[in-house]
Amino acid sequence: LPAPRSKPDMNGKYKVAVDAMTSERGVATVVNAAADALQELPDLELILVGDPSQLEPLMKAHKGLDAARCSIEPALQVIGMDEEPGSAFKAKRDASVSVACRLVKDGKAHAAVSPGNTGASVVAATLTLGRIPGVRRPGILAFMPSKSGSTAVMDVGAVVDCRPEDLVLFAIMGSACVELVLGKQEPRVGLLSIGEEDIKGNEQIFATFAMLQKAPVKFIGNVEGRDIFGSRVDVVVCDGFVGNVVLKTAEGTVRFVVHTLKEYFSKAGLLVKLGAWLAKPAFRHLAQRASDDEYGGAFLLGVAADFIIAHGSSNQLALKNAIRQARRCAEYGLTAKLAARISQVSSEVTA
Amino acid sequence: LPAPRSKPDMNGKYKVAVDAMTSERGVATVVNAAADALQELPDLELILVGDPSQLEPLMKAHKGLDAARCSIEPALQVIGMDEEPGSAFKAKRDASVSVACRLVKDGKAHAAVSPGNTGASVVAATLTLGRIPGVRRPGILAFMPSKSGSTAVMDVGAVVDCRPEDLVLFAIMGSACVELVLGKQEPRVGLLSIGEEDIKGNEQIFATFAMLQKAPVKFIGNVEGRDIFGSRVDVVVCDGFVGNVVLKTAEGTVRFVVHTLKEYFSKAGLLVKLGAWLAKPAFRHLAQRASDDEYGGAFLLGVAADFIIAHGSSNQLALKNAIRQARRCAEYGLTAKLAARISQVSSEVTA
Repeated sequence: LPAPRSKPDMNGKYKVAVDAMTSERGVATVVNAAADALQELPDLELILVGDPSQLEPLMKAHKGLDAARCSIEPALQVIGMDEEPGSAFKAKRDASVSVACRLVKDGKAHAAVSPGNTGASVVAATLTLGRIPGVRRPGILAFMPSKSGSTAVMDVGAVVDCRPEDLVLFAIMGSACVELVLGKQEPRVGLLSIGEEDIKGNEQIFATFAMLQKAPVKFIGNVEGRDIFGSRVDVVVCDGFVGNVVLKTAEGTVRFVVHTLKEYFSKAGLLVKLGAWLAKPAFRHLAQRASDDEYGGAFLLGVAADFIIAHGSSNQLALKNAIRQARRCAEYGLTAKLAARISQVSSEVTA
Repeated sequence: LPAPRSKPDMNGKYKVAVDAMTSERGVATVVNAAADALQELPDLELILVGDPSQLEPLMKAHKGLDAARCSIEPALQVIGMDEEPGSAFKAKRDASVSVACRLVKDGKAHAAVSPGNTGASVVAATLTLGRIPGVRRPGILAFMPSKSGSTAVMDVGAVVDCRPEDLVLFAIMGSACVELVLGKQEPRVGLLSIGEEDIKGNEQIFATFAMLQKAPVKFIGNVEGRDIFGSRVDVVVCDGFVGNVVLKTAEGTVRFVVHTLKEYFSKAGLLVKLGAWLAKPAFRHLAQRASDDEYGGAFLLGVAADFIIAHGSSNQLALKNAIRQARRCAEYGLTAKLAARISQVSSEVTA
């Protein structure tokens, strides 16, 4: 386990390594987001990892970029969105995401951000940085919007055949992450199932339910898909297969709603069209609430350093916020806190 | 297997048995829905199954109810929404849902409808009516709204630990049901996974993918949660645990969207409020598209007779449509067609 880097470096700065080559919106969007993040956070330093021949001209051309706090770490290989993570990681040792992880491993950065292939991020981070002792499989925590603000869902795609032990660790790590990000003490943890009663579920759920009742989290029992958007639960624990389906189903539903309204408006009479125009601020508000730009990405929890997985299609704001999130994790020492909690649980279990 | 009742009885009528006691909206809503269905469908006869002392006065008081085509079959026991299905079925042999199934079993009705406890409906139908030969576990098919109309999702909660064989049967039965209900020939079947590539998924998905490639359905490969609401797939096949989470996540997302807009409108300025008021027809249209009232319920496929599972909270329109759906299944001979296809597949496999 690398030493927890919850303290800034000798210059008082938090350093974040950013995989600059894998954003679907291109390298320029990453450079713009970097400039925004540096402007917003005076104690931030960035290392953009990627092809200097692309990065240098963009950085020079950007007048708002504080060049003194932004360096380049060369990496000439890139793992594409559709590559098989395991073999791509092995074949491209100097891929931008792997180089970003090595910077953290070597103590040159506190945390890393990548908007690339999620599977490749999980593999590169796990194999380069190692895992927190006691964690079999790191998982991905994503925030989804809810009536009361946000609900954390973990795992959303890293581990598709979870053991009950994995889910219990997700509950513990998810709780700690929510305490940091949302500032909620003792977050309420629910197990995603198909009914609230403890007789509802499958074999995986029954076994996990029993273990969560004894785990050091505030376990409120089974919750359902609709509870994610309500206000009774803060951390929803689920298998990565189910969590990924949940994420994409919610995304599809929002798109369906928007499509249905737009189609209706396009064919409607003048008064309804006027109504749609006047009500536009409400739709903008909805789009903002439904997006996760505010969080900028998801948290890879269980690897031995802080790593933020940004969306491949992240816009400038989302990428900037992903960088901010990485810096917050570093300041808070999230990974170190997770490790401390997990070691406590392990010793409780073995005691 | 009961003889396929795809022909009307000697009086030219299709008979549907309705579990009249388990609607969350009360017995009166069921009686009103029955009256509506009889008015809409001249070749329909209904048997309302339940407590005569509650049903009789309501039927007499309803002026629009064609009493000559609506009889009562007494059943004094009711399985509640929260009862454990297996033990409730055994303890209450004369529960309304079981009596409705027996009417079908004994040839007194072509099909049955129940808005009660879904698990109890599955158990009562499976144990009373038996299964189509070759079907290990009957599943539930629900229609969800999509850009192009509707997408069938199966299973949405009957089988929470599916074997790949179960999922292949869901694909075959789901295709046949979509041909009937949506009138689509050769419906496109997708396997719900966490990416379109065939390397994405879990063990269950990999095994099922290989089997579906050889199955007598139009298999288009893996699909994602968001595809349900798009236009590239007609039948989405999934484990009942995942399907149930999908259904409730979509429901929660729609509620979240409505809540977010309403909250914004309530605090907005006069012009935005006016816009919301003018745009109301669009929101009504959305509510209608997002509801499944048009289908009235889900299809229990794999039991040896046609059975429609209506929502417990179904309104009068949804219940009426569930009855209409049951009659359509009877006329079409859905169960007999499913049985014929499955026997063909079985003999192909054993050949």
